[in-house]
Amino acid sequence: MAWARAVCTDGRILTGVLGDGTLHPRTALGAEDTVGNPEDLSKLTLLPPCVPGKFIGLWNNFHAAATRNGWTPPDHPLYFLKPDTALSGPNATVTIPAAAGRVLFEGELGIVIGRTCRNMATEDAKDAILGYTCVNDLTSIDVLNADPAFPQWTRAKGFDGFGALGPVIATGLAWQDLTVKVLVNGRERQSYPASDMIMSPPEIVSALSRDMTLHPGDVIACGTSIGARPVKAGDQVEVVIDGIGTLAVTMAAEGRAD
Amino acid sequence: MAWARAVCTDGRILTGVLGDGTLHPRTALGAEDTVGNPEDLSKLTLLPPCVPGKFIGLWNNFHAAATRNGWTPPDHPLYFLKPDTALSGPNATVTIPAAAGRVLFEGELGIVIGRTCRNMATEDAKDAILGYTCVNDLTSIDVLNADPAFPQWTRAKGFDGFGALGPVIATGLAWQDLTVKVLVNGRERQSYPASDMIMSPPEIVSALSRDMTLHPGDVIACGTSIGARPVKAGDQVEVVIDGIGTLAVTMAAEGRAD
Repeated sequence: MAWARAVCTDGRILTGVLGDGTLHPRTALGAEDTVGNPEDLSKLTLLPPCVPGKFIGLWNNFHAAATRNGWTPPDHPLYFLKPDTALSGPNATVTIPAAAGRVLFEGELGIVIGRTCRNMATEDAKDAILGYTCVNDLTSIDVLNADPAFPQWTRAKGFDGFGALGPVIATGLAWQDLTVKVLVNGRERQSYPASDMIMSPPEIVSALSRDMTLHPGDVIACGTSIGARPVKAGDQVEVVIDGIGTLAVTMAAEGRAD
Repeated sequence: MAWARAVCTDGRILTGVLGDGTLHPRTALGAEDTVGNPEDLSKLTLLPPCVPGKFIGLWNNFHAAATRNGWTPPDHPLYFLKPDTALSGPNATVTIPAAAGRVLFEGELGIVIGRTCRNMATEDAKDAILGYTCVNDLTSIDVLNADPAFPQWTRAKGFDGFGALGPVIATGLAWQDLTVKVLVNGRERQSYPASDMIMSPPEIVSALSRDMTLHPGDVIACGTSIGARPVKAGDQVEVVIDGIGTLAVTMAAEGRAD
């Protein structure tokens, strides 16, 4: 099943399930109850498939990246938050602010929470995951390291639009079988197996639920592996995960887009 | 003028302006339009005075703390985000999770945004500030420094309830004249002048608006100065700023309080 969120030509915003070229609206993300009539996808514009109350991103969660960079695998998820205004969706134009300097794409698997989680055991966490989405965790590498006393994770990853989600939230996937790919202007630039994760999605959800209450629609980006690279204005960046789809964004220079 | 948010005995949540022992409801935070009847404060329970879309906290923004700790004053605000679930309000009971270890209070002045800000000049930013509130930016010092490769600002400051706001948002204050005090069990433990800030509230708002769009109700905690100390279960911690009021929370041990 694929959950999507979209805006109609009349401005209504719908959340629902895709099928037969239509969106079948539901009362809320993850809800069983339908509401209103199915809408033809050709008349809708897709939005980020959910509006997370918190958008968490992990660092250092792939063995290949840890090995290459000499990082010690952590014993608890290491994470930052992306602000609400960083959220962007399928086919967004994302502006690179002049102050951001060099910006990297980071293709990631995103966990979408389906029920409230607090102090949840790992064996129960699997059932708290509604599904998975593609994430482009855009990051200014220059801002991140600009101040030697304080790594600026929030600022580096928090510019408007720097957290792209979509195109849908796919349910019923075996995360171990997924491959995260990134194409820049059609050329494959990143490709790694989700099975190389240091902490699995259920382990991540369980550990985070001991730090803070997680709510439906919250998103946890599982971190990236090797292959993240700089992007520049004009680039089309696609995060592709078979079973979820293609999340495309176009990078723009400040003052030229939107 | 003092903005407050409160829940009625029948469960309705109101935002409005205080006067004559009553809350005068408005259509939204900062709005001119009234809605419904004034409600007697004795029949209301105060909530956090706003629900920030983002709750930003600054590090290293006071000369006295920078001098004592040997920190270089930054040329751009250094900040982290507190998650939505960290929000707590007047008279909250805040649980110290076992995993949090040593937790410090940090009394701070909080800026509450009144209008949408994007690339705003410092001279305009003053008018974008709705008012000021008291903040207790609770912080696990053990979690912050647990991993030498990654300072865990988000996790250390993100436990449920670790971001207390209130009791009200006061408008028309001269921030330079304010003193931030913290009392623990009635004993003064922190007292510093807001005028010792490295970056002023308008400078902070302007700088942050160049990183991300700020919206009405967003909160920026201006950072703390010297005097932050550990708290333990049972402590009553009050952040006091004359002109705003007293924000009291009670600390509890895990498993013993809601």
